[in-house]
Amino acid sequence: IEAEDRSAVSALAEEMHYADLAHAYQEIEEDKHELFLKTIGPEKAADMIVELPDTMIEEALDAFSPSELKVLFHELSDDDRVDILQDVGDEARLRFLGLLGPEDEELTRSLLKYEHDTAGGRMTTRIGRIFDNQTVKQAIEMLRRGQESTETLSRIFVVDQKGRLLGKLRFRDLAFNTWDTPVRDIMREIGPERVLATADQEEAANMLLKYDLIALPVIDEFDHLLGIVTHDDAMEILQEESTEDIEKIAGIGGEQSEETYLNTSILNQFRRRAGWLTGLAFVSLLSGYVMMRFGSILSQVFLLSLFLPMVVAAGGNTGGQASTMVIRAMSLGEISPGSAGEVAWKELRTGFFLGLLLGTCMALFTVLLLPFFHLPMPPGMSLAKVGVAIAIALTTQVTSATFLGSLLPLGARAVNLDPAVVSAPAIAAIVDVSGMVIYFTVARAILGL
Amino acid sequence: IEAEDRSAVSALAEEMHYADLAHAYQEIEEDKHELFLKTIGPEKAADMIVELPDTMIEEALDAFSPSELKVLFHELSDDDRVDILQDVGDEARLRFLGLLGPEDEELTRSLLKYEHDTAGGRMTTRIGRIFDNQTVKQAIEMLRRGQESTETLSRIFVVDQKGRLLGKLRFRDLAFNTWDTPVRDIMREIGPERVLATADQEEAANMLLKYDLIALPVIDEFDHLLGIVTHDDAMEILQEESTEDIEKIAGIGGEQSEETYLNTSILNQFRRRAGWLTGLAFVSLLSGYVMMRFGSILSQVFLLSLFLPMVVAAGGNTGGQASTMVIRAMSLGEISPGSAGEVAWKELRTGFFLGLLLGTCMALFTVLLLPFFHLPMPPGMSLAKVGVAIAIALTTQVTSATFLGSLLPLGARAVNLDPAVVSAPAIAAIVDVSGMVIYFTVARAILGL
Repeated sequence: IEAEDRSAVSALAEEMHYADLAHAYQEIEEDKHELFLKTIGPEKAADMIVELPDTMIEEALDAFSPSELKVLFHELSDDDRVDILQDVGDEARLRFLGLLGPEDEELTRSLLKYEHDTAGGRMTTRIGRIFDNQTVKQAIEMLRRGQESTETLSRIFVVDQKGRLLGKLRFRDLAFNTWDTPVRDIMREIGPERVLATADQEEAANMLLKYDLIALPVIDEFDHLLGIVTHDDAMEILQEESTEDIEKIAGIGGEQSEETYLNTSILNQFRRRAGWLTGLAFVSLLSGYVMMRFGSILSQVFLLSLFLPMVVAAGGNTGGQASTMVIRAMSLGEISPGSAGEVAWKELRTGFFLGLLLGTCMALFTVLLLPFFHLPMPPGMSLAKVGVAIAIALTTQVTSATFLGSLLPLGARAVNLDPAVVSAPAIAAIVDVSGMVIYFTVARAILGL
Repeated sequence: IEAEDRSAVSALAEEMHYADLAHAYQEIEEDKHELFLKTIGPEKAADMIVELPDTMIEEALDAFSPSELKVLFHELSDDDRVDILQDVGDEARLRFLGLLGPEDEELTRSLLKYEHDTAGGRMTTRIGRIFDNQTVKQAIEMLRRGQESTETLSRIFVVDQKGRLLGKLRFRDLAFNTWDTPVRDIMREIGPERVLATADQEEAANMLLKYDLIALPVIDEFDHLLGIVTHDDAMEILQEESTEDIEKIAGIGGEQSEETYLNTSILNQFRRRAGWLTGLAFVSLLSGYVMMRFGSILSQVFLLSLFLPMVVAAGGNTGGQASTMVIRAMSLGEISPGSAGEVAWKELRTGFFLGLLLGTCMALFTVLLLPFFHLPMPPGMSLAKVGVAIAIALTTQVTSATFLGSLLPLGARAVNLDPAVVSAPAIAAIVDVSGMVIYFTVARAILGL
């Protein structure tokens, strides 16, 4: 692509979808960016820039002259325009706002007052809107006049004279009815499928998912119809939220930005990961302290070292599994804090059976396979005794780790923290300590050390 | 809800959205299920049953008589009907197929031949379909005649006489043009936004997301239009795939089913988690083996025990973070196997800086704070030496773990394995072993043991 002359690129760009253009833009070298943008021109660039990672947007816009930017911003739908303006610096935002026509500027300013991650910040106001006292003919006339500035007519919303949301209908409901039918008679009422402009974007996305909607109406506290959040926004929101969950579970901090992995700087990667790591390292010192205190046991029976890392890791793994399942189920709205008892009881039993399984495996391993290795044993010690100690320690450790792993996310939610903040590494660090204590206590008791 | 009499429940159900009904159904006690279903009747129950977890579907259907089931199946769209039939046992599927009319039965059988998780298995065939040589008037007439059996007219697809996909248009394109305009003149051509029926459902969902589509056309290998996958299917698919990724990263095996957390049996939970756990437990024995071999070092300098769990855990945490980021970026299509070099170089540097940070923290901790604890030290040993050893060991361990964590998912993809199979616990188990070796080797070299 890079080597071709401008006209060829231009012809190619004409045929390409803007999502593919954005992909191509990110692939080429940075010093070709300006040429690329100039070649495809502001109209084609508008839709493409929306698809770029946040951090690349301002640079891309700077490639255009003020008059080209006017064309570009005019080309954008209102929600995309707001998105872009939220991603550039304050100085650039003011400059760009000045380029908009007075009507667009007012609209954009009113949308900018909603936070980026709210339903209001995500909505488009360019919707098909008709009145309940119109006839089908009047409604179609009104939609036809407004069609240029309407993003979607897949769902048309019906409001009363004061702009309050009453119902919705599909274009075919208008087209397949006689022209004098009152809109009121054919519209379908809208039940709970509406969202406040100030609500979190995740709430809007989940509602779109739950009710299988193409467009979710956004209202103010007086039920006035402000705009809609569309299905494609919902998909993006859900993807972002899932990524955030995944990262938090892995102990990666900070907001998930729209940057792609390869576009994130090393400094940024470092920042998002370093916090948890450092904190957890100091928690791990507690495990080390326990180990140091009980170190003499290990030097008395070297064989105990063989199972120590396993008992500790098994706790981290099962605790991590349990917390991951619970965190995801909470994200999907399958578990409410009220079900804490049920969840805890379920995980307690699951953990017990998992612990029993691992304990049995390891006891059998100790008794059946270890004799072939002729390991040195202190007098009065038998492999059978060690096997029993391992089995008991493992069962205890896995059961308690699973139980803890399931309860911590619920506890976090109960004190209004994000459940995903209880990451798998955090659980692991905590149950490492308890695992050491359990292991040494059980070993001491059973082996009489 | 439970205590109220049938007519009240019925009136309430009339007003409720089927997604809310499904939620209510899962909340009530099991012995009330049949009464609930009988009360709302087969027509209302049809849409609700689609929303239930897989495992509850067959039981719910068994509440109805054959004649009621006929009504229920007739009420369903073809893709929902296929979904339901894929979730019941073989015997039940044959019985239910026999209840369909001959036309529906043939259609359903032809859809059942596609795997549940392919584009063909997810598509609906009840779409608005017109011919390129029609006029607007003819097209509207054709759509009006078919409107009862059409699921969505938000996008209308244009095919040639042989049924091959040519283009698409919106209802408003028909409504806002004169009646004698040829469809061919107003349709928009469809570029790469189409998917083979045999393609993975995730491919279809990602395409819907990428191109912001309401409906993605599904074709056979000769470009014949078979049906569409809609935006709400795509959202469900993306949610399922995200959950699967999250679970795999946590070392939870098996397919993510549509069951909710609370509906999954303990046996099922046990099965999905036990596999990885048992395998990893045996890998952990390797760590134990290393520890047993080098145990004499720990008994010479007890202080070394203090840092051992931390060095090991830091590797697991950073390796897990790196693999999680890479796995997610691959799922979102941000990284291809071709970028392996770039990813590895990025993570190598990130890992090095993280290791340096942790190493410096711990060295400072050793030199500045540990003197206050008056720990017993063997002759010739100083805290400064120990601090240097810890810093070097930590930096090496974190750098190598991060590097490994980022490369393993890419390696898995290269040999056609799911990258998410390289779970965080697996990385942790592997770098536990390398961490032990690094720690003891560095300690021995620096401290001269």
